Amino acid sequence: MHALEQKILNEGIVLSNNVLKVDAFLNHQIDPVLMQQIGKEFAARFKDAGITKIITIEASGIAPAVMAGLELGVQVIFARKYQSLTLKDDLYRAKVYSFTKQTESTIAISNKHIHATDKVLVIDDFLANGQAALGLADLIHQANAEVVGIGIVIEKSFQTGRDLLLNKGYRVESLARIASLDNEKVTFIK
Amino acid sequence: MHALEQKILNEGIVLSNNVLKVDAFLNHQIDPVLMQQIGKEFAARFKDAGITKIITIEASGIAPAVMAGLELGVQVIFARKYQSLTLKDDLYRAKVYSFTKQTESTIAISNKHIHATDKVLVIDDFLANGQAALGLADLIHQANAEVVGIGIVIEKSFQTGRDLLLNKGYRVESLARIASLDNEKVTFIK
Repeated sequence: MHALEQKILNEGIVLSNNVLKVDAFLNHQIDPVLMQQIGKEFAARFKDAGITKIITIEASGIAPAVMAGLELGVQVIFARKYQSLTLKDDLYRAKVYSFTKQTESTIAISNKHIHATDKVLVIDDFLANGQAALGLADLIHQANAEVVGIGIVIEKSFQTGRDLLLNKGYRVESLARIASLDNEKVTFIK
Repeated sequence: MHALEQKILNEGIVLSNNVLKVDAFLNHQIDPVLMQQIGKEFAARFKDAGITKIITIEASGIAPAVMAGLELGVQVIFARKYQSLTLKDDLYRAKVYSFTKQTESTIAISNKHIHATDKVLVIDDFLANGQAALGLADLIHQANAEVVGIGIVIEKSFQTGRDLLLNKGYRVESLARIASLDNEKVTFIK
């Protein structure tokens, strides 16, 4: 997706050969127009997949997921990383290990808003080692619903996540695929 | 806002005389069409206020804030409740006490994305005791920027937040104002 790649080149900051900071438009400050373009692109790629629901994870997945939900005409659920006071009824839970933070967290969604008939699109901001996407897929499988695809805003293609997800049979659509962050430079897979 | 009030009546769950659960369309599952309507309503109310930036707080404020940002043509920043690995440079920080959870948390925004010339609209999902909105306003004041107004999706008008914010001179625009949750029934201020 050209507009996203240009935004990454113009406003992304390469912190190391595996960390790209996109706080200027996705992870902290959010560019609503770019999010709308991203939502339209996800919708275009999955328009014939019969999606009935989108699931993402707080917080940075919410903006692209809601824009995709608007385009596809479906509800969006964001998995919470912690239980809140008003969300303590029946939950599906999964463990997610973060290689970046070297911590394990629990993510959860209510069993009220997902059903066995749902065809679900998973959306997340980044794909690196694939652990968050796998955790979200786990929640969907617990509901006996179907994971129709995984939509990623920025894929670090030099890490293992994409292959892990493809090997499990998931369809992965990434809007920007980064081949390398070496030498403080972003190189995309064309 | 009629559509929002109807949604609250149809899908909100009164858990006690001061807790309203709106996990069906705002706090966990998100209705993108309603969020777009909410964004348009905020934009209409603040269209002549010269807004240059919107600030909200993760996670439930993000969807309404991004939709408002799309309508107003401005960038959105979401304050983080925890520091993440890639957000450890210069931050504005504020303490926020949650009466619901009886805990104090730190919220923070990067000083890179807000400037003294900014005219900021604060957006949040709920207004109860006003502590989150005050914390966000504190961050904005630290940047010497102006708080032009505070936009709230659901105000619990029987709690102290609205008066607290009005007494400090802030303009408060709440799209649904709840007079009471007594007897498991939602009553709105008309």
